[in-house]
Amino acid sequence: MGRWEPDARGRLVGAALELYAERGFDQTTVADIATRAGVTERTFFRYFVDKREVLFDGAHTLETAVVGGITSAAQRGTPLDVVAEAFAGATSLLEERRDFARQRAAVIAATPGLHERELLKLAGLGAAAADALRGRGVPDPAAGLAAEAGVAVFRIGFERWIGDAAAGTLAACIRSALAELKALTGGG
Amino acid sequence: MGRWEPDARGRLVGAALELYAERGFDQTTVADIATRAGVTERTFFRYFVDKREVLFDGAHTLETAVVGGITSAAQRGTPLDVVAEAFAGATSLLEERRDFARQRAAVIAATPGLHERELLKLAGLGAAAADALRGRGVPDPAAGLAAEAGVAVFRIGFERWIGDAAAGTLAACIRSALAELKALTGGG
Repeated sequence: MGRWEPDARGRLVGAALELYAERGFDQTTVADIATRAGVTERTFFRYFVDKREVLFDGAHTLETAVVGGITSAAQRGTPLDVVAEAFAGATSLLEERRDFARQRAAVIAATPGLHERELLKLAGLGAAAADALRGRGVPDPAAGLAAEAGVAVFRIGFERWIGDAAAGTLAACIRSALAELKALTGGG
Repeated sequence: MGRWEPDARGRLVGAALELYAERGFDQTTVADIATRAGVTERTFFRYFVDKREVLFDGAHTLETAVVGGITSAAQRGTPLDVVAEAFAGATSLLEERRDFARQRAAVIAATPGLHERELLKLAGLGAAAADALRGRGVPDPAAGLAAEAGVAVFRIGFERWIGDAAAGTLAACIRSALAELKALTGGG
Protein backbone atom coordinates (compact mmCIF):
# COMPACT_ATOMS: atom_id res chain seq x y z
CA MET A 1 0.00 0.00 0.00
CA GLY A 2 1.13 3.50 -0.53
CA ARG A 3 3.79 2.30 -2.91
CA TRP A 4 3.58 3.62 -6.41
CA GLU A 5 1.70 1.30 -8.71
CA PRO A 6 2.12 2.43 -12.29
CA ASP A 7 -1.17 2.12 -14.20
CA ALA A 8 -2.77 -0.02 -11.49
CA ARG A 9 -6.17 0.60 -13.04
CA GLY A 10 -5.08 -0.55 -16.50
CA ARG A 11 -3.45 -3.65 -15.05
CA LEU A 12 -6.56 -4.47 -13.04
CA VAL A 13 -8.76 -4.19 -16.13
CA GLY A 14 -6.39 -6.37 -18.16
CA ALA A 15 -6.13 -8.96 -15.38
CA ALA A 16 -9.91 -9.06 -14.92
CA LEU A 17 -10.58 -9.60 -18.62
CA GLU A 18 -7.98 -12.36 -18.81
CA LEU A 19 -9.47 -14.15 -15.82
CA TYR A 20 -13.08 -13.73 -16.98
CA ALA A 21 -12.09 -15.27 -20.31
CA GLU A 22 -10.09 -18.11 -18.72
CA ARG A 23 -12.37 -19.11 -15.83
CA GLY A 24 -15.61 -17.30 -16.44
CA PHE A 25 -16.87 -14.19 -14.68
CA ASP A 26 -18.69 -16.04 -11.90
CA GLN A 27 -15.62 -18.09 -11.02
CA THR A 28 -13.32 -15.09 -10.70
CA THR A 29 -12.87 -13.24 -7.39
CA VAL A 30 -11.56 -9.75 -6.69
CA ALA A 31 -8.64 -11.43 -4.89
CA ASP A 32 -7.80 -13.34 -8.08
CA ILE A 33 -7.85 -10.14 -10.10
CA ALA A 34 -5.68 -8.24 -7.64
CA THR A 35 -3.15 -11.08 -7.48
CA ARG A 36 -2.94 -11.32 -11.27
CA ALA A 37 -2.47 -7.56 -11.52
CA GLY A 38 0.19 -7.58 -8.80
CA VAL A 39 -1.71 -5.21 -6.51
CA THR A 40 -3.65 -5.57 -3.27
CA GLU A 41 -7.40 -6.01 -3.00
CA ARG A 42 -7.47 -2.62 -1.35
CA THR A 43 -6.03 -1.12 -4.51
CA PHE A 44 -8.74 -2.86 -6.53
CA PHE A 45 -11.42 -1.23 -4.41
CA ARG A 46 -9.79 2.16 -4.85
CA TYR A 47 -10.80 1.96 -8.52
CA PHE A 48 -13.89 -0.28 -8.67
CA VAL A 49 -16.87 -0.97 -6.42
CA ASP A 50 -16.96 -4.64 -7.44
CA LYS A 51 -15.78 -7.00 -10.15
CA ARG A 52 -18.75 -6.15 -12.35
CA GLU A 53 -17.89 -2.45 -12.48
CA VAL A 54 -14.60 -3.28 -14.21
CA LEU A 55 -16.78 -3.93 -17.26
CA PHE A 56 -19.34 -1.13 -16.87
CA ASP A 57 -17.41 1.80 -15.60
CA GLY A 58 -17.32 3.52 -19.01
CA ALA A 59 -21.10 3.56 -19.37
CA HIS A 60 -21.64 6.78 -17.48
CA THR A 61 -18.97 8.57 -19.54
CA LEU A 62 -20.60 7.38 -22.76
CA GLU A 63 -24.03 8.53 -21.63
CA THR A 64 -22.72 11.95 -20.63
CA ALA A 65 -20.98 12.35 -23.99
CA VAL A 66 -24.05 11.25 -25.99
CA VAL A 67 -26.41 13.52 -24.06
CA GLY A 68 -23.93 16.40 -24.44
CA GLY A 69 -23.69 15.74 -28.17
CA ILE A 70 -27.47 15.78 -28.58
CA THR A 71 -27.89 18.91 -26.49
CA SER A 72 -25.24 20.88 -28.34
CA ALA A 73 -25.96 19.65 -31.89
CA ALA A 74 -26.62 22.21 -34.61
CA GLN A 75 -30.25 22.51 -35.68
CA ARG A 76 -30.12 20.44 -38.82
CA GLY A 77 -30.91 16.88 -39.83
CA THR A 78 -33.64 14.73 -38.34
CA PRO A 79 -33.68 13.79 -34.63
CA LEU A 80 -32.30 10.39 -35.64
CA ASP A 81 -29.35 12.06 -37.41
CA VAL A 82 -28.72 14.06 -34.24
CA VAL A 83 -28.68 10.93 -32.06
CA ALA A 84 -26.51 8.89 -34.42
CA GLU A 85 -24.06 11.77 -34.79
CA ALA A 86 -23.93 12.18 -31.00
CA PHE A 87 -22.98 8.49 -30.73
CA ALA A 88 -20.41 8.83 -33.50
CA GLY A 89 -18.95 11.87 -31.73
CA ALA A 90 -18.78 10.07 -28.38
CA THR A 91 -16.53 7.26 -29.50
CA SER A 92 -13.06 8.68 -28.86
CA LEU A 93 -12.78 6.86 -25.54
CA LEU A 94 -13.83 3.56 -27.08
CA GLU A 95 -11.88 4.03 -30.29
CA GLU A 96 -8.53 3.37 -28.57
CA ARG A 97 -9.87 0.38 -26.69
CA ARG A 98 -11.04 -1.98 -29.40
CA ASP A 99 -9.36 -5.04 -27.86
CA PHE A 100 -10.90 -4.25 -24.50
CA ALA A 101 -14.31 -3.75 -26.13
CA ARG A 102 -14.09 -7.07 -27.94
CA GLN A 103 -12.99 -9.04 -24.88
CA ARG A 104 -15.62 -7.32 -22.79
CA ALA A 105 -18.34 -8.23 -25.30
CA ALA A 106 -17.27 -11.87 -25.19
CA VAL A 107 -17.47 -11.98 -21.37
CA ILE A 108 -20.89 -10.33 -21.39
CA ALA A 109 -22.22 -12.71 -24.04
CA ALA A 110 -21.05 -15.65 -21.90
CA THR A 111 -22.62 -14.40 -18.65
CA PRO A 112 -26.42 -13.98 -18.49
CA GLY A 113 -26.38 -11.64 -15.46
CA LEU A 114 -23.98 -9.31 -17.27
CA HIS A 115 -26.06 -9.46 -20.43
CA GLU A 116 -29.07 -8.18 -18.45
CA ARG A 117 -26.99 -5.38 -17.01
CA GLU A 118 -25.73 -4.40 -20.45
CA LEU A 119 -29.30 -4.25 -21.76
CA LEU A 120 -30.31 -2.13 -18.79
CA LYS A 121 -27.45 0.29 -19.45
CA LEU A 122 -28.42 0.54 -23.12
CA ALA A 123 -32.06 1.12 -22.17
CA GLY A 124 -30.92 3.87 -19.80
CA LEU A 125 -28.84 5.36 -22.60
CA GLY A 126 -31.89 5.35 -24.88
CA ALA A 127 -34.03 7.02 -22.22
CA ALA A 128 -31.37 9.68 -21.62
CA ALA A 129 -31.07 10.32 -25.37
CA ALA A 130 -34.87 10.66 -25.66
CA ASP A 131 -34.91 13.15 -22.77
CA ALA A 132 -32.12 15.15 -24.39
CA LEU A 133 -34.14 15.30 -27.63
CA ARG A 134 -37.24 16.45 -25.72
CA GLY A 135 -35.04 19.15 -24.20
CA ARG A 136 -34.37 20.34 -27.77
CA GLY A 137 -38.10 20.54 -28.41
CA VAL A 138 -38.48 17.24 -30.27
CA PRO A 139 -42.00 15.95 -29.49
CA ASP A 140 -43.03 12.37 -28.80
CA PRO A 141 -43.20 9.86 -30.37
CA ALA A 142 -40.36 11.18 -32.55
CA ALA A 143 -38.06 11.64 -29.53
CA GLY A 144 -38.57 8.08 -28.28
CA LEU A 145 -38.34 6.55 -31.73
CA ALA A 146 -35.22 8.46 -32.74
CA ALA A 147 -33.52 7.52 -29.46
CA GLU A 148 -34.41 3.83 -29.76
CA ALA A 149 -33.43 3.70 -33.41
CA GLY A 150 -30.22 5.59 -32.57
CA VAL A 151 -29.30 3.02 -29.93
CA ALA A 152 -29.99 0.25 -32.47
CA VAL A 153 -27.70 1.98 -34.97
CA PHE A 154 -25.01 2.28 -32.28
CA ARG A 155 -25.32 -1.40 -31.33
CA ILE A 156 -25.12 -2.64 -34.89
CA GLY A 157 -22.23 -0.31 -35.69
CA PHE A 158 -20.46 -1.39 -32.50
CA GLU A 159 -20.87 -5.08 -33.30
CA ARG A 160 -19.35 -4.62 -36.72
CA TRP A 161 -16.50 -2.55 -35.32
CA ILE A 162 -15.48 -5.17 -32.75
CA GLY A 163 -16.09 -8.03 -35.18
CA ASP A 164 -14.20 -6.76 -38.22
CA ALA A 165 -10.82 -5.00 -37.92
CA ALA A 166 -11.17 -3.86 -41.55
CA ALA A 167 -14.48 -2.10 -40.90
CA GLY A 168 -12.81 1.19 -39.99
CA THR A 169 -13.37 3.38 -36.97
CA LEU A 170 -16.33 2.98 -34.63
CA ALA A 171 -17.62 6.38 -35.76
CA ALA A 172 -17.51 5.20 -39.39
CA CYS A 173 -19.32 1.95 -38.47
CA ILE A 174 -22.06 3.93 -36.70
CA ARG A 175 -22.49 6.24 -39.68
CA SER A 176 -22.66 3.34 -42.06
CA ALA A 177 -25.28 1.58 -39.89
CA LEU A 178 -27.33 4.80 -40.00
CA ALA A 179 -27.08 4.89 -43.80
CA GLU A 180 -28.21 1.26 -43.91
CA LEU A 181 -31.18 1.96 -41.66
CA LYS A 182 -32.14 4.84 -43.94
CA ALA A 183 -31.91 2.55 -46.94
CA LEU A 184 -34.12 0.00 -45.12
CA THR A 185 -36.81 2.58 -44.49
CA GLY A 186 -36.73 3.89 -48.01
CA GLY A 187 -34.82 7.07 -47.14
CA GLY A 188 -31.18 7.62 -47.94
CA MET B 1 -58.42 -29.56 -5.09
CA GLY B 2 -60.05 -31.41 -7.86
CA ARG B 3 -63.07 -29.17 -7.59
CA TRP B 4 -63.96 -27.21 -10.65
CA GLU B 5 -62.44 -23.73 -10.63
CA PRO B 6 -63.93 -21.65 -13.42
CA ASP B 7 -61.22 -19.56 -15.11
CA ALA B 8 -58.73 -20.16 -12.31
CA ARG B 9 -55.96 -18.85 -14.57
CA GLY B 10 -57.76 -15.60 -15.30
CA ARG B 11 -58.55 -15.09 -11.64
CA LEU B 12 -54.93 -15.76 -10.67
CA VAL B 13 -53.68 -13.20 -13.18
CA GLY B 14 -56.18 -10.61 -11.99
CA ALA B 15 -55.36 -11.25 -8.33
CA ALA B 16 -51.62 -11.07 -8.98
CA LEU B 17 -51.87 -7.73 -10.80
CA GLU B 18 -54.05 -6.27 -8.06
CA LEU B 19 -51.61 -7.34 -5.37
CA TYR B 20 -48.52 -6.21 -7.28
CA ALA B 21 -50.13 -2.78 -7.68
CA GLU B 22 -51.26 -2.60 -4.03
CA ARG B 23 -48.18 -3.95 -2.22
CA GLY B 24 -45.45 -4.14 -4.83
CA PHE B 25 -44.22 -7.22 -6.62
CA ASP B 26 -41.51 -8.08 -4.10
CA GLN B 27 -43.94 -7.93 -1.17
CA THR B 28 -46.44 -10.31 -2.76
CA THR B 29 -46.25 -14.07 -2.27
CA VAL B 30 -47.78 -16.90 -4.26
CA ALA B 31 -49.88 -17.70 -1.19
CA ASP B 32 -51.28 -14.14 -1.24
CA ILE B 33 -52.18 -14.48 -4.90
CA ALA B 34 -53.86 -17.85 -4.45
CA THR B 35 -55.86 -16.60 -1.46
CA ARG B 36 -57.03 -13.49 -3.32
CA ALA B 37 -58.01 -15.63 -6.32
CA GLY B 38 -59.85 -18.11 -4.06
CA VAL B 39 -57.75 -21.10 -5.16
CA THR B 40 -54.98 -23.17 -3.57
CA GLU B 41 -51.27 -22.61 -4.06
CA ARG B 42 -51.23 -25.94 -5.82
CA THR B 43 -53.63 -24.54 -8.39
CA PHE B 44 -51.33 -21.54 -8.88
CA PHE B 45 -48.44 -23.84 -9.67
CA ARG B 46 -50.56 -25.76 -12.15
CA TYR B 47 -50.53 -22.61 -14.32
CA PHE B 48 -47.32 -20.74 -13.44
CA VAL B 49 -43.79 -21.68 -12.41
CA ASP B 50 -43.49 -18.68 -10.12
CA LYS B 51 -45.03 -15.27 -9.47
CA ARG B 52 -42.88 -13.66 -12.14
CA GLU B 53 -44.23 -15.89 -14.90
CA VAL B 54 -47.72 -14.47 -14.37
CA LEU B 55 -46.33 -11.40 -16.13
CA PHE B 56 -44.15 -13.05 -18.77
CA ASP B 57 -46.05 -16.08 -19.88
CA GLY B 58 -47.25 -14.45 -23.11
CA ALA B 59 -43.72 -13.68 -24.33
CA HIS B 60 -43.15 -17.05 -25.96
CA THR B 61 -46.48 -16.85 -27.80
CA LEU B 62 -45.61 -13.38 -29.09
CA GLU B 63 -42.18 -14.51 -30.27
CA THR B 64 -43.63 -17.54 -32.07
CA ALA B 65 -46.23 -15.36 -33.79
CA VAL B 66 -43.67 -12.72 -34.85
CA VAL B 67 -41.20 -15.29 -36.17
CA GLY B 68 -44.05 -17.05 -38.00
CA GLY B 69 -45.16 -13.75 -39.50
CA ILE B 70 -41.66 -12.95 -40.76
CA THR B 71 -41.12 -16.42 -42.16
CA SER B 72 -44.41 -16.51 -44.04
CA ALA B 73 -44.45 -12.89 -45.24
CA ALA B 74 -44.88 -12.21 -48.96
CA GLN B 75 -41.70 -11.08 -50.74
CA ARG B 76 -42.39 -7.36 -50.81
CA GLY B 77 -41.44 -4.34 -48.79
CA THR B 78 -38.16 -3.82 -46.97
CA PRO B 79 -37.03 -6.16 -44.19
CA LEU B 80 -38.17 -3.52 -41.70
CA ASP B 81 -41.67 -3.52 -43.24
CA VAL B 82 -41.72 -7.30 -42.90
CA VAL B 83 -40.77 -7.15 -39.20
CA ALA B 84 -43.19 -4.33 -38.33
CA GLU B 85 -46.01 -6.09 -40.18
CA ALA B 86 -45.20 -9.33 -38.35
CA PHE B 87 -45.54 -7.47 -35.03
CA ALA B 88 -48.77 -5.82 -36.17
CA GLY B 89 -50.11 -9.24 -37.21
CA ALA B 90 -49.15 -10.83 -33.88
CA THR B 91 -51.23 -8.54 -31.71
CA SER B 92 -54.56 -10.36 -31.55
CA LEU B 93 -53.71 -11.92 -28.19
CA LEU B 94 -52.69 -8.57 -26.73
CA GLU B 95 -55.46 -6.58 -28.38
CA GLU B 96 -58.12 -8.00 -26.04
CA ARG B 97 -55.96 -7.49 -22.98
CA ARG B 98 -55.24 -3.78 -22.94
CA ASP B 99 -56.04 -3.37 -19.24
CA PHE B 100 -53.80 -6.30 -18.39
CA ALA B 101 -51.02 -4.86 -20.58
CA ARG B 102 -51.27 -1.46 -18.91
CA GLN B 103 -51.27 -2.81 -15.37
CA ARG B 104 -48.43 -5.15 -16.24
CA ALA B 105 -46.35 -2.27 -17.64
CA ALA B 106 -46.87 -0.30 -14.42
CA VAL B 107 -45.67 -3.22 -12.26
CA ILE B 108 -42.63 -3.75 -14.47
CA ALA B 109 -41.72 -0.06 -14.42
CA ALA B 110 -41.89 -0.11 -10.61
CA THR B 111 -39.72 -3.23 -10.19
CA PRO B 112 -36.09 -3.12 -11.43
CA GLY B 113 -35.66 -6.91 -11.56
CA LEU B 114 -38.73 -7.19 -13.78
CA HIS B 115 -37.53 -4.37 -15.98
CA GLU B 116 -34.32 -6.30 -16.64
CA ARG B 117 -36.30 -9.38 -17.50
CA GLU B 118 -38.53 -7.43 -19.88
CA LEU B 119 -35.47 -6.03 -21.65
CA LEU B 120 -34.02 -9.51 -21.92
CA LYS B 121 -37.24 -10.82 -23.45
CA LEU B 122 -37.30 -7.95 -25.96
CA ALA B 123 -33.66 -8.58 -26.84
CA GLY B 124 -34.51 -12.24 -27.39
CA LEU B 125 -37.42 -11.22 -29.57
CA GLY B 126 -35.09 -9.01 -31.63
CA ALA B 127 -32.57 -11.84 -32.03
CA ALA B 128 -35.31 -14.26 -33.09
CA ALA B 129 -36.65 -11.74 -35.61
CA ALA B 130 -33.15 -11.21 -37.03
CA ASP B 131 -32.69 -14.98 -37.39
CA ALA B 132 -36.04 -15.27 -39.15
CA LEU B 133 -34.97 -12.54 -41.60
CA ARG B 134 -31.67 -14.32 -42.24
CA GLY B 135 -33.74 -17.44 -42.94
CA ARG B 136 -35.46 -15.44 -45.70
CA GLY B 137 -32.09 -14.56 -47.19
CA VAL B 138 -31.76 -11.05 -45.73
CA PRO B 139 -28.03 -10.44 -45.19
CA ASP B 140 -26.39 -8.70 -42.25
CA PRO B 141 -26.30 -5.92 -41.19
CA ALA B 142 -29.76 -5.36 -42.71
CA ALA B 143 -31.23 -8.32 -40.79
CA GLY B 144 -29.96 -7.11 -37.42
CA LEU B 145 -30.86 -3.49 -38.07
CA ALA B 146 -34.36 -4.26 -39.33
CA ALA B 147 -35.01 -6.50 -36.33
CA GLU B 148 -33.75 -3.92 -33.80
CA ALA B 149 -35.62 -1.09 -35.49
CA GLY B 150 -38.72 -3.32 -35.68
CA VAL B 151 -38.58 -3.97 -31.93
CA ALA B 152 -38.20 -0.21 -31.35
CA VAL B 153 -41.29 0.41 -33.52
CA PHE B 154 -43.18 -2.24 -31.54
CA ARG B 155 -42.18 -0.72 -28.20
CA ILE B 156 -43.11 2.80 -29.15
CA GLY B 157 -46.40 1.66 -30.69
CA PHE B 158 -47.11 -0.45 -27.60
CA GLU B 159 -46.45 2.46 -25.24
CA ARG B 160 -48.84 4.67 -27.13
CA TRP B 161 -51.47 1.94 -27.23
CA ILE B 162 -51.43 1.37 -23.46
CA GLY B 163 -51.12 5.09 -22.72
CA ASP B 164 -53.89 6.47 -24.91
CA ALA B 165 -57.25 4.74 -25.24
CA ALA B 166 -58.03 6.92 -28.27
CA ALA B 167 -54.92 5.79 -30.16
CA GLY B 168 -56.72 2.88 -31.82
CA THR B 169 -55.69 -0.75 -32.01
CA LEU B 170 -52.21 -1.95 -31.14
CA ALA B 171 -51.70 -2.93 -34.79
CA ALA B 172 -52.60 0.62 -35.86
CA CYS B 173 -50.21 2.09 -33.26
CA ILE B 174 -47.39 -0.13 -34.54
CA ARG B 175 -48.06 0.88 -38.16
CA SER B 176 -48.13 4.53 -37.23
CA ALA B 177 -44.81 4.22 -35.31
CA LEU B 178 -43.32 2.63 -38.44
CA ALA B 179 -44.55 5.54 -40.56
CA GLU B 180 -43.01 7.97 -38.06
CA LEU B 181 -39.68 6.16 -38.14
CA LYS B 182 -39.73 6.35 -41.92
CA ALA B 183 -40.43 10.07 -41.73
CA LEU B 184 -37.51 10.43 -39.28
CA THR B 185 -35.12 8.74 -41.67
CA GLY B 186 -36.30 10.72 -44.67
CA GLY B 187 -38.31 7.86 -46.21
CA GLY B 188 -42.09 7.70 -46.16
